[in-house]
Amino acid sequence: MSRYVRNVQFWLSRALRCHSTTQTRTAFSNRALIRLSRGNNFGVTCASIGFRHASSATSYTGRTHLCGSLRNSHAGQKVVLCGWLQHSRQDQFLVLKDWDGAVQLVLTDEKRNEFSSLLDELRLESVLEVYGTVRTRPDGQRNEQMPTGDIEVLVSSLHILNSCQPQLPFDVKGFHEVKESLRMEHRYLDLRGGRLQRNLRIRSRMVMKMREFLANLNDFVEVETPTLFRRTPGGAKEFVVPSHIPGKFYSLPQSPQQFKQLLMVGGLDRYFQIARCYRDEGAKPDRQPEFTQVDLEMSFVGAEGVMSLVEDMLQHAWPSERGTIATPFKRLSYKDCMKQYGCDKPDTRFAWKLKNVTEMFKTHPVPAFSAVDLNKCSVQVLCIPDGCDHLSNKDIQEVTEHGKQHLPESLKVLSAKVKEEEVFSGSFAKQLKEETAMQLAATLGIKRDDLVFFSVGEQYDPHTALSKIRLRCADLMEDKGVKVRDPLQMNFLWVLDFPLFLPREDGGEGLESAHHPFTAPFAEDEALLNTHPERVRGQHYDLVLNGQEIGGGSIRIHDAHMQRYVIEDILKEDCSQLEHLLSALDSGCPPHGGIALGLDRLMAIICDAPSIRDVIAFPKSHDGKDPMSKAPANVSQSDLDSYHITVKPQL
Amino acid sequence: MSRYVRNVQFWLSRALRCHSTTQTRTAFSNRALIRLSRGNNFGVTCASIGFRHASSATSYTGRTHLCGSLRNSHAGQKVVLCGWLQHSRQDQFLVLKDWDGAVQLVLTDEKRNEFSSLLDELRLESVLEVYGTVRTRPDGQRNEQMPTGDIEVLVSSLHILNSCQPQLPFDVKGFHEVKESLRMEHRYLDLRGGRLQRNLRIRSRMVMKMREFLANLNDFVEVETPTLFRRTPGGAKEFVVPSHIPGKFYSLPQSPQQFKQLLMVGGLDRYFQIARCYRDEGAKPDRQPEFTQVDLEMSFVGAEGVMSLVEDMLQHAWPSERGTIATPFKRLSYKDCMKQYGCDKPDTRFAWKLKNVTEMFKTHPVPAFSAVDLNKCSVQVLCIPDGCDHLSNKDIQEVTEHGKQHLPESLKVLSAKVKEEEVFSGSFAKQLKEETAMQLAATLGIKRDDLVFFSVGEQYDPHTALSKIRLRCADLMEDKGVKVRDPLQMNFLWVLDFPLFLPREDGGEGLESAHHPFTAPFAEDEALLNTHPERVRGQHYDLVLNGQEIGGGSIRIHDAHMQRYVIEDILKEDCSQLEHLLSALDSGCPPHGGIALGLDRLMAIICDAPSIRDVIAFPKSHDGKDPMSKAPANVSQSDLDSYHITVKPQL
Repeated sequence: MSRYVRNVQFWLSRALRCHSTTQTRTAFSNRALIRLSRGNNFGVTCASIGFRHASSATSYTGRTHLCGSLRNSHAGQKVVLCGWLQHSRQDQFLVLKDWDGAVQLVLTDEKRNEFSSLLDELRLESVLEVYGTVRTRPDGQRNEQMPTGDIEVLVSSLHILNSCQPQLPFDVKGFHEVKESLRMEHRYLDLRGGRLQRNLRIRSRMVMKMREFLANLNDFVEVETPTLFRRTPGGAKEFVVPSHIPGKFYSLPQSPQQFKQLLMVGGLDRYFQIARCYRDEGAKPDRQPEFTQVDLEMSFVGAEGVMSLVEDMLQHAWPSERGTIATPFKRLSYKDCMKQYGCDKPDTRFAWKLKNVTEMFKTHPVPAFSAVDLNKCSVQVLCIPDGCDHLSNKDIQEVTEHGKQHLPESLKVLSAKVKEEEVFSGSFAKQLKEETAMQLAATLGIKRDDLVFFSVGEQYDPHTALSKIRLRCADLMEDKGVKVRDPLQMNFLWVLDFPLFLPREDGGEGLESAHHPFTAPFAEDEALLNTHPERVRGQHYDLVLNGQEIGGGSIRIHDAHMQRYVIEDILKEDCSQLEHLLSALDSGCPPHGGIALGLDRLMAIICDAPSIRDVIAFPKSHDGKDPMSKAPANVSQSDLDSYHITVKPQL
Repeated sequence: MSRYVRNVQFWLSRALRCHSTTQTRTAFSNRALIRLSRGNNFGVTCASIGFRHASSATSYTGRTHLCGSLRNSHAGQKVVLCGWLQHSRQDQFLVLKDWDGAVQLVLTDEKRNEFSSLLDELRLESVLEVYGTVRTRPDGQRNEQMPTGDIEVLVSSLHILNSCQPQLPFDVKGFHEVKESLRMEHRYLDLRGGRLQRNLRIRSRMVMKMREFLANLNDFVEVETPTLFRRTPGGAKEFVVPSHIPGKFYSLPQSPQQFKQLLMVGGLDRYFQIARCYRDEGAKPDRQPEFTQVDLEMSFVGAEGVMSLVEDMLQHAWPSERGTIATPFKRLSYKDCMKQYGCDKPDTRFAWKLKNVTEMFKTHPVPAFSAVDLNKCSVQVLCIPDGCDHLSNKDIQEVTEHGKQHLPESLKVLSAKVKEEEVFSGSFAKQLKEETAMQLAATLGIKRDDLVFFSVGEQYDPHTALSKIRLRCADLMEDKGVKVRDPLQMNFLWVLDFPLFLPREDGGEGLESAHHPFTAPFAEDEALLNTHPERVRGQHYDLVLNGQEIGGGSIRIHDAHMQRYVIEDILKEDCSQLEHLLSALDSGCPPHGGIALGLDRLMAIICDAPSIRDVIAFPKSHDGKDPMSKAPANVSQSDLDSYHITVKPQL
């Protein structure tokens, strides 16, 4: 029996069944049941239109078309539509909407009489089922603003499938002005509004194309890895999950790193997963306690192979409504990033590069830098083109303070305005010798009304300060309507040649991994592991998009001896919790590498969304709560008893 | 720059870099580095073979082919292979294996000399990179057992990428005889063995095809829903996750039920997700604390639509190596299932149906049933064809006891052997009047050596007892080599017309949901909600495959009043934790329905695996532990402090 026949039979039987129940209405049936109104000719309609589904989006249902899909070419066709009532004018013109779009319904005088009691109780956002015939709108009534504006649907029958309450917490159509907390509390209404749903649909399609690229075009195997795992060393940001064994806890992992490496040991060859990951960072803006990674790993591959694959995957999966992207992506070494932009995830959509002008100030010292040893420190300079035109003195002061927060107490950020070519103004400018000013002007290529910031300090401190100033000035100028960056431009950048180890961030002695302890060193730096580990570069690659890190990966250590040496001898950490991984590396582990892309952030950039919350169906608020269900919530002590835990009394 | 050129450049640069480091070997480099051996002609090889990838499975790497892909048609081609050493004979013939298959490598005398030191240290399961030329094997040396048995690869260069430890915990090739606990402890080795990996690859491909069916062919949107949620009413089986807010916990949900309904309210129209779900059931065989559901929901759909969609999806995604499946699937009502098979998930691959013979024993009472009121009870009978041939008296006794466990203490299961047509033997048989025996023989169509079980009791008790006996006898007879079921047969069955409510399982007064409180009643039974809720049928459908429930779904209640009535007035439960759902239903919720398929169980049946652990990459053991990483594990009190919990002292 064909699907169509079966569906028709079902809808017919439903129609008949519903029809019979109109005689025995319950308390509910007059509100919500799929039911027939008087004079309905459901069966006839189904048969006469042959019950063909116009698109894959209406298959397996009683609908024939989506509201937004109707055009002049459908004129004369009988259709069945379902959707939400958006608008009603004089009970004669109704606007019905589904996710695909909206369409105008028209009732004849006769039908308005027939459905008068139904129309009386009809509230906006109620759910309707409509039978009717498409017709071209009369001349002069076409609506060019509406994709379906050439046609309207002459209603033959109309049914309320579910009435909406009289007063929704906010207007579904006008959600933009509503506070985010209220929108999150009624997320289902915000989703119906359109913008969020569009983001989720772009996300779904893009992820599907990534899967097709990986699984169908490149023989990757999608493998689901556990989320109830064991705490990893130093896993302070891992949520714990109590078990029924007293004192024993699972942890929710921050990434499937260990599992994907073990899959390579297992000969899986090419793994990927759209992986749910967890990070307990407490309250941080634009972070979510659970998030999604496009996680992949390959055997017998080098860094070039992984990077090429990622470029091709993104190009393949890129949403057509966002144009196309060019490959290969640009590349910068970590050092060049820091030198040119002052940070390792530069926004390269605008130039504004840093310059090192230490030598000028060595030759012509100024009082402002007199406390600083310019043999140990450097002077970095940043020129904001036309900065004086757009930034007030107050702005400059605020920006300067913002930059200084990233410098040690004693050091400063200074600014100077360019009055004429080679002529600076401001209190610091007075200290500049004419020769220095000329050199600066030549080096920076400055022009009238540019704004110049100076920063001095050790290592990358002055760069970091100017990097913050660079972004802050760009934001401020954009707030004032200056176009600094093109929001539609997609500047991908690979950042390479990171150091494998960095001095410990907590100030303690020794080194810590710049990324994680499984990253392999450059082959030519291996000898340095024993002698100068701080000089070893890692085979790590970060992917940056428009100044945001959207992915990171590396070629991994596949040698058990080297892995143990790195953990025990260099990082001075305990290997006991990683013995299973070391044992695996020693059991025929192939060379391998991979990457993880932060899907939420990537989608937020693609959808031009201000927050990752806008590309997640049900996000938590910035403090980790769900305003809709009120999670997290209390759990009774008797429930906790089975996990052998109690809540500590609060003092 | 094309991929190929870039890849060649990378591999060339790698070759050169590695070559230079052979002068400065570190402690690691002689074990594990990707390095060149003497006389390597890597660059030349790459250039001469044009570095074309033979398949999508080797793209982005230095390999040209998979081991198992080589055939006579490749004769004369230069290839680069990577894999694990499986076998070595006289240092002349090596067998190299990757996931795709194995191939024989041949070394000339000259090459044996050149690589003698490398060959000396070569251990099985070490990882090799091989350069060579494919050639047809000499006559008489072809191996028809091997897919690559027509050819061999004449080695020009050979490199150990990673040596394997001398003594693995078990033989990777012979894992079948190894205890599961040891295999789980070294899961990466078990994965390399082949069988598990094959299952994971079938799973990945099948899920991909399901996605294509849903997303590409039917416009479903894949939406990720949260796993950190709020405890649901009665969610005793939900893991808790402590938060930083004192006394507040997230819960890991058993399914995305609420979210998918809210997405329908949000107008998403068609949702699916391959969803990770959690159920804390402690130690249960063949259950996993985390598992995967193919979860979907549609708006404006009836039960027929969902069932048709599922049938088409499974047919579309069915692995070709497992034949094809026919649709539509067979259907049985809950009542007919119970009457015919004694359970609601019958294995219909074999007949052996139950018969109701109460009337015979009413007419001709027997002492064995004298304590029973046959006006309230029924006598059910099950005939095992040829049962006497294969089951010993001990078997029959064991089976009888097994069945009796499902009957109240006072009731019994009885058996009788068929000696000749219409002649029963055994102690119970002596009670049977000749007329009863004749009637039984006629009703059951029994023949010599059949075995007949009788069971008496109220409602479905005798059916349940016989259902257990039915399956137990089938298992026992199959253990003895009798073919009862065809393991390759796939008997899908929809079970329909379930009651919406059942008496409470804990024996308390009142009703509980047969499935869950969101299932909609049959439209024609709605009036009964107020008067006889126990007689209301639910719009629920279970999908059964070969006697195992692999999915369940329903059309949901979309009316807020009805939902509140069901929860508060019929189930006598508190609505306060579901106010957000009720409020959503009242905000323009479309009629909707869906289903969830248990992916792990489905894959286990398809892969003919004895346990769902065999279709999961890293499963937990039956007691919820991970033998590899030793999860769950201790967590320090200082880590627990930030969650405001302590472990209760054990008495």
